[in-house]
Amino acid sequence: MTMPRSAASMDMLLRPRSVAIFGASDDPTRISGRPLRYLLEAGFVGPIYPINPNRTTVQGVAAFATLADVPETPDVALIAVPASLTEQAVRDCVDKGVSAAVIFSAGYAESGEDGLAVQQRVANIARAGGLRLLGPNCLGVFNPQIGFYGTFTQSLDKEMPSPGPLAIVSQSGAYGSHIAYLARQRGMGINYFITTGNEADVDVSECLEWMAQQDDIKVIMAYVEGIRDGERFRRALELARRNRKPVVMMKVGRSEIGAKAASSHTASLAGSDAIYDELFRQYGVHRAETTDEQLDVAYACMRGIFPEGNKLGVVTLSGGAGVLISDAAERYGLDVAPMPQQAQDKLQALLPFATVTNPVDTTAQALNDMNLLAQNIAVMLDEGGYDALVGFFSTVPNTRTLSSPLRKAIEKGCARFPDRLIALEMIADKDVVREYEKSGFLVFEDAARAVAALSALTRFAAAFGREDLTAVTAASPVPIKGGALSEVAAKRLLAAAGIPFLDEALAADPAAAGAAADAIGYPGVMKIVSPDIEHKTEIGGVIVGVHDRASVEDAYRTLIARAANHRPDAAIEGVLVAPMAKKGVEVIVGVSRDPVFGPAVMFGLGGVHVEVLKDVTFRLAPFDLSEAQAMIGEIRGRAMLAGARGAAPSDVAALARLLVDVAHFAAAHRDDIETIDLNPVIVMPEGDGLVALDALLVPRDDV
Amino acid sequence: MTMPRSAASMDMLLRPRSVAIFGASDDPTRISGRPLRYLLEAGFVGPIYPINPNRTTVQGVAAFATLADVPETPDVALIAVPASLTEQAVRDCVDKGVSAAVIFSAGYAESGEDGLAVQQRVANIARAGGLRLLGPNCLGVFNPQIGFYGTFTQSLDKEMPSPGPLAIVSQSGAYGSHIAYLARQRGMGINYFITTGNEADVDVSECLEWMAQQDDIKVIMAYVEGIRDGERFRRALELARRNRKPVVMMKVGRSEIGAKAASSHTASLAGSDAIYDELFRQYGVHRAETTDEQLDVAYACMRGIFPEGNKLGVVTLSGGAGVLISDAAERYGLDVAPMPQQAQDKLQALLPFATVTNPVDTTAQALNDMNLLAQNIAVMLDEGGYDALVGFFSTVPNTRTLSSPLRKAIEKGCARFPDRLIALEMIADKDVVREYEKSGFLVFEDAARAVAALSALTRFAAAFGREDLTAVTAASPVPIKGGALSEVAAKRLLAAAGIPFLDEALAADPAAAGAAADAIGYPGVMKIVSPDIEHKTEIGGVIVGVHDRASVEDAYRTLIARAANHRPDAAIEGVLVAPMAKKGVEVIVGVSRDPVFGPAVMFGLGGVHVEVLKDVTFRLAPFDLSEAQAMIGEIRGRAMLAGARGAAPSDVAALARLLVDVAHFAAAHRDDIETIDLNPVIVMPEGDGLVALDALLVPRDDV
Repeated sequence: MTMPRSAASMDMLLRPRSVAIFGASDDPTRISGRPLRYLLEAGFVGPIYPINPNRTTVQGVAAFATLADVPETPDVALIAVPASLTEQAVRDCVDKGVSAAVIFSAGYAESGEDGLAVQQRVANIARAGGLRLLGPNCLGVFNPQIGFYGTFTQSLDKEMPSPGPLAIVSQSGAYGSHIAYLARQRGMGINYFITTGNEADVDVSECLEWMAQQDDIKVIMAYVEGIRDGERFRRALELARRNRKPVVMMKVGRSEIGAKAASSHTASLAGSDAIYDELFRQYGVHRAETTDEQLDVAYACMRGIFPEGNKLGVVTLSGGAGVLISDAAERYGLDVAPMPQQAQDKLQALLPFATVTNPVDTTAQALNDMNLLAQNIAVMLDEGGYDALVGFFSTVPNTRTLSSPLRKAIEKGCARFPDRLIALEMIADKDVVREYEKSGFLVFEDAARAVAALSALTRFAAAFGREDLTAVTAASPVPIKGGALSEVAAKRLLAAAGIPFLDEALAADPAAAGAAADAIGYPGVMKIVSPDIEHKTEIGGVIVGVHDRASVEDAYRTLIARAANHRPDAAIEGVLVAPMAKKGVEVIVGVSRDPVFGPAVMFGLGGVHVEVLKDVTFRLAPFDLSEAQAMIGEIRGRAMLAGARGAAPSDVAALARLLVDVAHFAAAHRDDIETIDLNPVIVMPEGDGLVALDALLVPRDDV
Repeated sequence: MTMPRSAASMDMLLRPRSVAIFGASDDPTRISGRPLRYLLEAGFVGPIYPINPNRTTVQGVAAFATLADVPETPDVALIAVPASLTEQAVRDCVDKGVSAAVIFSAGYAESGEDGLAVQQRVANIARAGGLRLLGPNCLGVFNPQIGFYGTFTQSLDKEMPSPGPLAIVSQSGAYGSHIAYLARQRGMGINYFITTGNEADVDVSECLEWMAQQDDIKVIMAYVEGIRDGERFRRALELARRNRKPVVMMKVGRSEIGAKAASSHTASLAGSDAIYDELFRQYGVHRAETTDEQLDVAYACMRGIFPEGNKLGVVTLSGGAGVLISDAAERYGLDVAPMPQQAQDKLQALLPFATVTNPVDTTAQALNDMNLLAQNIAVMLDEGGYDALVGFFSTVPNTRTLSSPLRKAIEKGCARFPDRLIALEMIADKDVVREYEKSGFLVFEDAARAVAALSALTRFAAAFGREDLTAVTAASPVPIKGGALSEVAAKRLLAAAGIPFLDEALAADPAAAGAAADAIGYPGVMKIVSPDIEHKTEIGGVIVGVHDRASVEDAYRTLIARAANHRPDAAIEGVLVAPMAKKGVEVIVGVSRDPVFGPAVMFGLGGVHVEVLKDVTFRLAPFDLSEAQAMIGEIRGRAMLAGARGAAPSDVAALARLLVDVAHFAAAHRDDIETIDLNPVIVMPEGDGLVALDALLVPRDDV
């Protein structure tokens, strides 16, 4: 099988058979000495070639004056020389035919315009020579399976990571090292670690794409400040989703100051942070707010079980803990469903003092006969049908006499249910925790954090179960050429895409308007039509309530006069004659274009809801019906559509359909539309559909 | 000085000079053996008297057959006998004149009606005999300063707590032990630990009250499932606030299932959970959502520094961490304000590679010359004027060669600013963490959690700085006697309390109505007035837009006829004649009575905002202007009052005044009013005040 070029070079970068190190230092504590030290300590499987013109050996390894002197072509070169010497090193790599190079040094794009110029020059040399680059300004990579440490992070000083099904990719070297260290502390093995720094070539998206294809990876932790190629990022996330690789993301820059700091830090265009939220929601990426949360969720993913349902069983030794866990479950959307009555009776017979509904409070009595605890858990999993179970055991596992019996009892209770997630809240020494983990349990020190992590797993399951998200149904459309469009022209395009409008007519003189109104019926609405007048009401360009032929002809003349008066230069297409709007709930649907991710569809209720209360939601286009339904469910004012104050429930099915149609239209025209506004859209009672009263479509200027 | 009885008995309970133990077992691993074991191991300062008729010594200590045989009166008795024997033990304590007893055993109120009866009997015996009771169904108390362990919690098996300025009070024994253990792990010393269990006598409020008065306490952690005496709880929280003792609260039962579980667990009336939120906000109590958060905030309080301002300096070795911390700061309301330009120039001169705005990213270069880092920090604190500083140092403090120099550098940088809070994010071994803590730094493993805790401290500072919150200004009012009130009667009472109404007149016949309308002006509104008709519109009891004398007289007759038709039994006081409402923003102000905490004032915008969008907020009465302003700022639709869509800003000052007046009226009538509704209230443009159009006041049935 031929590998796509990208995957092949990523393979070289993460699984090299030989390594050269430019500027390798004999001092193992220096930045330029650490990679060699780590490679030696970890027993890297292949040959190592230090490049150092001043020494014959470096840290005991035979050194070479130049790369050209090395007897074979190394797969990877680590470039640990100052920025000023990097260009030559990259040229040497190209000349030797090296596959990939890692540039550690800073002083490139992040340091200003001069640095950016150097970075671009280096990148061009590499690209022309078929050399893939990681960095510059990065902490490198590692792969403990083969002892490959192409990194100088000081976080490895005390101990090396163990291999395991976690992959880490980070734009920040320090943060990447930080979470790698924390993961190690929690006993999570890491197979691949990549920091991308300035991303002169290899970027986070490419790493994610590659990681999503590795069989030895069960979960990916990522840190992102900003993305330049939105499409590629999206494709990578979709690939991870399809391959059932959960991505646990720390995307920073949500705050204004944070965003500013991020862009000064990486000199990268961050894009709108809110867009990332929606993107992650769409592709089932878990966005963590804190490092703890990121670790918790990744840790929970390592078992590879993603519960389809959200039913949570809770078993505790203390009533108080049960209440606390129930509160957390509600907060995170898990259902602490009661046990069936029959099962409750069974439990009560086992443990007469227990509270048996769910949460099940066995009280500390259960510790007197561990067999009862085992039976209790088995009954809960069997007859309660819980997708996951949280047990609260506080410091009991750390009590010498109880630790092992308790573990075995829980093991026994869960034995017949290997597909369920069992998370235990317990405070114990590390070796005790490892024992419990070996028995297949997730261990947390904080029950609420356990619940939060379990809830994240159910969202992964939901995302993994969905259809392909990126298909655009619209056939390759006729591009919309630049220049403003009138309301009529916009409606024509959108109507062809399935958007329902009123039965209207464009009239070019008073008599035609009158005839149209007679045909459409009274009372009616009349609007000036011009590609040059975006906001008609501002110039008095709309007259409502025309009630007979004479008033229609009058209104025609008035509108033309107003347009001529306010905008004498405007091209007038005529006057639109429409029936009065039907009754329903007013909503607004819009499209705007994110510079990184393309068109996003916005939805909210009309009137004060969008304008004053800012009660809106949006999604990147395209998306499917279930996303559209989720959008409708997200706005705070959703009750307005459910039939508030005695009104009939609105036709939300039609609304969801509309959102999908707009999204597909916008996606098909991703390169040639700047904004679309359907404002208002009247959603009528269930079964009666909806109708957009007005449409504004602004093509992109630069097309 | 004479101590109030409560404080004196709490003193006895927490600082006894001698202890008796009913049912003391010779087996130190049993529940009834553990208290003696702990007392012996901790070297309790006074005599211990095991009561055990079957042995002459227990765990090597001389035992007594009965309490009567003990040669002195012990201050405290620990009752570790089954529920069936407890009553006799309590009688013995009364006979001997013991001050306080701790009852460990379960099987009382929490187990059903029989248990409740026993509990009440025991409580009555104690009360009559002047014996204070802790429990039953509790884990007891401890005070490590004097080696007093009146508890059987197994969480002490491995090590005993150290004394320190933390107090813990918990309704749940297991949860109390759990957080005591975690506090210990974090190096937090505990002076007082109390679990209250079923609260037959001593309750959480009394413990809080006592803890709030201890000079050796800097922070109180509490766990609450439900409160029976709302007034006492409130007084305790107010005392803690006044004495600058931060209370870090885990109140469980927020969720429906949680609340149900809580009430089945303690058989106590939980009251509305939302009320607790408001109560805690009013009294500056920090309500934690997770145990981690509860520990974090309490830990941060231990330094005793509560920053008045919210300016946060951030110094990191990594740009990425700076972004992450800035995001967290915005989320938690801290201001990552930029450094003054002059200070930035100074920093840039120190560290040419650094980003110096704030967050200050020194880059790892700062580690090469720790002196620069020290200067950098000093400049930030001095010229940046930050109230608190967060430093991100990841695993550097765990690097042998860097740990101590880094700590000393930060120490040096902070030396001149002992009033600032310095929180360090770092991952290090416990002994390293303790070293850093000794230098005065707060240490967190997660930067976002550090920021969250610092933010909680600023809220404590704000609460500590406020006026007395409980004073009710209304002079002891004439009680409102039972029975329904008409709109006119309700308005009369409320107008006397300062609530503005329209200039209206009650008319008893058509002619009087006509004369009144002539005087008030046209157009007008007319409403039927009857104490028996709460919802006038439902029977057509309101007619708007009467425009001349004839239509007023007509309307009078119509209203009387409609009332007679729909409610022939209703007492009719006449018809109210009022001017048409002025223009403004419609709001709703209401009062409802919580069974535990008394009257709460509700506020929201009129129309769909309250009814459909549920956009409301409330506070327990009474409260001051600043609380009222906070309420107005809390509703999601607050922009509607700020002058939305071109309207003039509303008179929010008058609205705040109204809320305070309603709150004081409700507080003064806390025992005789069930509900008040002012709906709608029209808030006019700034300076024009407001007016309540309608008023409903329902006195309490049982008064």
